[in-house]
Amino acid sequence: MGFWKSLFSTTDTTTSPKPAELNSSTASAVTIGNSRIFFSTDREIDLYELEELCDAVGWSRRPLRKVKKAIQHSFLVVSMWEQRGTQRRLVGFSRATSDHAFNATIWDVVVHPDFQGKGLGKALMRQMIKRLRSEDISNITLFADPHVIDFYRGLGFMPDPEGIKGMFWYPD
Amino acid sequence: MGFWKSLFSTTDTTTSPKPAELNSSTASAVTIGNSRIFFSTDREIDLYELEELCDAVGWSRRPLRKVKKAIQHSFLVVSMWEQRGTQRRLVGFSRATSDHAFNATIWDVVVHPDFQGKGLGKALMRQMIKRLRSEDISNITLFADPHVIDFYRGLGFMPDPEGIKGMFWYPD
Repeated sequence: MGFWKSLFSTTDTTTSPKPAELNSSTASAVTIGNSRIFFSTDREIDLYELEELCDAVGWSRRPLRKVKKAIQHSFLVVSMWEQRGTQRRLVGFSRATSDHAFNATIWDVVVHPDFQGKGLGKALMRQMIKRLRSEDISNITLFADPHVIDFYRGLGFMPDPEGIKGMFWYPD
Repeated sequence: MGFWKSLFSTTDTTTSPKPAELNSSTASAVTIGNSRIFFSTDREIDLYELEELCDAVGWSRRPLRKVKKAIQHSFLVVSMWEQRGTQRRLVGFSRATSDHAFNATIWDVVVHPDFQGKGLGKALMRQMIKRLRSEDISNITLFADPHVIDFYRGLGFMPDPEGIKGMFWYPD
């Protein structure tokens, strides 16, 4: 089992959702309705549940065998869960590859549409950054689709720093 | 031991260097003077020899303990060696991180200045691409410094494909 961290630590319930507190270095005293949001680094994720989450944001399906392998060989996996009573629901996911020393690259950042616009994507990314930094990784990188560049910029990511270009290889 | 592959397979010697044949899928019948160029995926690289190679291109020194860890946790390491008689010299290096399933990112591509301009950087990169493809990695990525963008473009790498931006995180 990986760590479980409650972003929202009070037991207060509010009838209207409050925006999530974004400073994930302090577990914030917020709940969303009757639910709490947790983060986990456990890799034992139900692949069908993950597929459902990726379906919800319109990603192309990928062979579960390869998804399983990719999770196993990622340096870090952070998943985000909604807990209501005894029920847990996967609402976000992200992972990073790394050489365990200098560089990490973040892939597959996804937040369920029902949970977007509440600061949870930022909270998820801050969990990623915090944990990569705690492992002494100095160079945290990613490849951002055009519509999320500003999202990542707001988290401290810089596009093309010093003219460095992200490049993808395409077969001839 | 990893594989050893001679790019230049004949025993003919020529007094003037010929450009290296770049199609690494066929071992090419070329020597450079009295030397042959080999590739290896063996990770047992003398870290001081690697440091000397990186010094030669002006890279900042990095703790050898971390370099060792990074090599151990890379998905692929390809080194390039000049063989003259029984002597071997490290003349090029590259490595890639990966999730072993979808994505790979190439780091630390270096060719000794004495061996630049002979097509050996391209040959080294083609070894990387060939081996990543043979492992069924579909997405091969890298971050290119401004002065080598055209070099990578010539190998089939595309900057910012579909507007995707390489981004680096910097602490506040």
